[in-house]
Amino acid sequence: MKKKNIQIFSKVQFSKDLEIKTMKVGIKSKSKEDVSVVTFKNSANVASVTTKSKTCAANISWLKKIKKNGKVKALFVNSGNANAYTGKIGYENVIKIAKNLAKINNCEKENIIISSTGVIGEQLPIGKILKKLLQEFGKKRIEKQNWLSFAKAIMTTDTFPKVAYKHTYINKRKYNIIGVSKGSGMIAPNMATMLGFIFTDAQITSKQLQQLLKAAVEKSFNNITVDGDTSTNDMVNLFSVKNKNKNKIKDLNKKDFKSFQKDLDEVAIKLAKQIVMDGEGANKIIEIKVKGAINNIQAKNVAFSIAKSLLVKTAIAGEDANWGRIIMAIGNSSAKVNQKKISIQIGDCMIIKEGEKNKNYKEIEISKYLKNKEIIISIDLYLGKGFSKVWTCDLTKKYIEINADYRS
Amino acid sequence: MKKKNIQIFSKVQFSKDLEIKTMKVGIKSKSKEDVSVVTFKNSANVASVTTKSKTCAANISWLKKIKKNGKVKALFVNSGNANAYTGKIGYENVIKIAKNLAKINNCEKENIIISSTGVIGEQLPIGKILKKLLQEFGKKRIEKQNWLSFAKAIMTTDTFPKVAYKHTYINKRKYNIIGVSKGSGMIAPNMATMLGFIFTDAQITSKQLQQLLKAAVEKSFNNITVDGDTSTNDMVNLFSVKNKNKNKIKDLNKKDFKSFQKDLDEVAIKLAKQIVMDGEGANKIIEIKVKGAINNIQAKNVAFSIAKSLLVKTAIAGEDANWGRIIMAIGNSSAKVNQKKISIQIGDCMIIKEGEKNKNYKEIEISKYLKNKEIIISIDLYLGKGFSKVWTCDLTKKYIEINADYRS
Repeated sequence: MKKKNIQIFSKVQFSKDLEIKTMKVGIKSKSKEDVSVVTFKNSANVASVTTKSKTCAANISWLKKIKKNGKVKALFVNSGNANAYTGKIGYENVIKIAKNLAKINNCEKENIIISSTGVIGEQLPIGKILKKLLQEFGKKRIEKQNWLSFAKAIMTTDTFPKVAYKHTYINKRKYNIIGVSKGSGMIAPNMATMLGFIFTDAQITSKQLQQLLKAAVEKSFNNITVDGDTSTNDMVNLFSVKNKNKNKIKDLNKKDFKSFQKDLDEVAIKLAKQIVMDGEGANKIIEIKVKGAINNIQAKNVAFSIAKSLLVKTAIAGEDANWGRIIMAIGNSSAKVNQKKISIQIGDCMIIKEGEKNKNYKEIEISKYLKNKEIIISIDLYLGKGFSKVWTCDLTKKYIEINADYRS
Repeated sequence: MKKKNIQIFSKVQFSKDLEIKTMKVGIKSKSKEDVSVVTFKNSANVASVTTKSKTCAANISWLKKIKKNGKVKALFVNSGNANAYTGKIGYENVIKIAKNLAKINNCEKENIIISSTGVIGEQLPIGKILKKLLQEFGKKRIEKQNWLSFAKAIMTTDTFPKVAYKHTYINKRKYNIIGVSKGSGMIAPNMATMLGFIFTDAQITSKQLQQLLKAAVEKSFNNITVDGDTSTNDMVNLFSVKNKNKNKIKDLNKKDFKSFQKDLDEVAIKLAKQIVMDGEGANKIIEIKVKGAINNIQAKNVAFSIAKSLLVKTAIAGEDANWGRIIMAIGNSSAKVNQKKISIQIGDCMIIKEGEKNKNYKEIEISKYLKNKEIIISIDLYLGKGFSKVWTCDLTKKYIEINADYRS
């Protein structure tokens, strides 16, 4: 999937209104690019969804403040330092970056979005950052759109860059939806250490962008978990970038809205699933489908109860058909459950049917299935029409290795 | 702690009304005892707290049914098989055991408590169990009180037997409180795969026992987490066993109630902490104290958000003073938090004081402290009077090893 995606990606003809610069500041390491600036020659419309953490980072506070503008001139992203829990100085550093980029771009600082990811509790090397910005933007500007460099420069513990692309049609005209994301640990609902930037050259109002993004996140980034931890820094942005054709921006009609939503959802889900695939130490991606709940919220609750269970995640890591742990996890959810009605399927194999162990169930078949890299667990609660689909990964020793020694 | 406890334990002079039999049935393995029966010559008063799991085991359904009796003649405990998600047959097997023990003891089946722990989804070897019970109780009965054999026979993945003892005074007379427990994984609030049996020879009514037990569990068994998973089978029972002195059973007065509660809490906390110490793969026990929350519930919420965070647990495993993860976990709780007021202390070392990094904080001191086996993390939210103390353990590769291959 990785290679295929990257190939498609390099051929995309996206609006020349968007320019990507990536650079090495030395926040993450000396050898890797760690700052990206995406500039929009004409301001882009933008929508944002941010972490619900009560100890959110300085840049998130800034985004919350300027969010209602719905207009953006430049997006700044750094990796290696989260600028979280950095107090007054941390927030002042955000303002400094915004002011500098505003000056370079001849706009208001309120049109600069800042995004950070990395270690919590350390100050940004602000001097170095500002110096580099001045150097880079002093040079003659060349229209560059190296999506892959962008996807790489935002990585922290990620092992591969995450990109997704789809074209979409509005009124029979073709447009692009391109996204990059990062994240591999501290991933859980309500935006984890996870950044997602999705760009379209379809002309959409900020208001509709916000509706579209919120719905897409609910089906994608908010439906994944690696370790149940939610971060201080996460955000997903959706940008509508001006293009040469200069269609007038007006509200999409119902039909176009719906079809755009579908394509956006697909891009968002692709990006979210790549985060799970790259889950720290993960060998397998696990899809959990729950139907028959009282409502969608309860379905999601059951799905996440399974997706977050360390015992389920370690069983899958061990390729062990220990369905008792799935039962246990269903029982722990806050959703309404009647244990005499539950059905559980792993892959195509029905293990529990309406509360009874399936007599034809052969453990050897499931054990064979569990050797796959993608595992699907399907639950039916037989109580209502609630449905949810979430993704997680298995939990391996490698996760512990990575996280017991992250900062050293 | 283990050895000291066991030594004290062997000298306890407990009411001869209580008899313990332990036996090998071959549920767990052929070489180890896996069934225990505690019999009360005169019925004991009893209180119970059980798992809140919606997929609870057959024996829990039985206990819920008979709980209101408040009287027990015998307690049956098996390890190696949870008798959970075993449908109609599973429940019938519970009734069979209760009927058999009722016949042996010449009482009603409603005075038999059944407790099971082990693998989910497999039927008990009921023929073998009933045969063994008949054999054992056909023999001449000898008053035996081998607490240690009992504590060992209820173990599953536990690496040591868990016991606690304290004497208590009512009206200047000395009584005993003795407890055994088991559990090392699938441990979380609301009773995890965790069994606790506490016995006293103080004469207390069932109603007061229930109040005492509920309050004690809230400070002990419900304040520990190993992996955030809650099991189908857990229960804690508190028994008031008749003794020779034959005091009349009447309600404890306020003062005696309070002092008994204190001693009971101490026994319950000792038992609960041993479960965390024996957490699967754990090297360290972590105590998390939260004060200054709006109320006790919110304090517990923050404490558990830290205690359940894989990133915090792996950081402690790696002896890494990564306090950013503690900040992240506080931010994830549903409690009210003002990040500008939070204080965080690891051991005696103040890292964050009222939202600011302590200038005198030396990472090397914390790194040294983190080499200890018992780690204390103290949080002050400076918002109110809410307080909570919970315990967890670090998360190591050994946990994955144990759980990726439990059934094989």
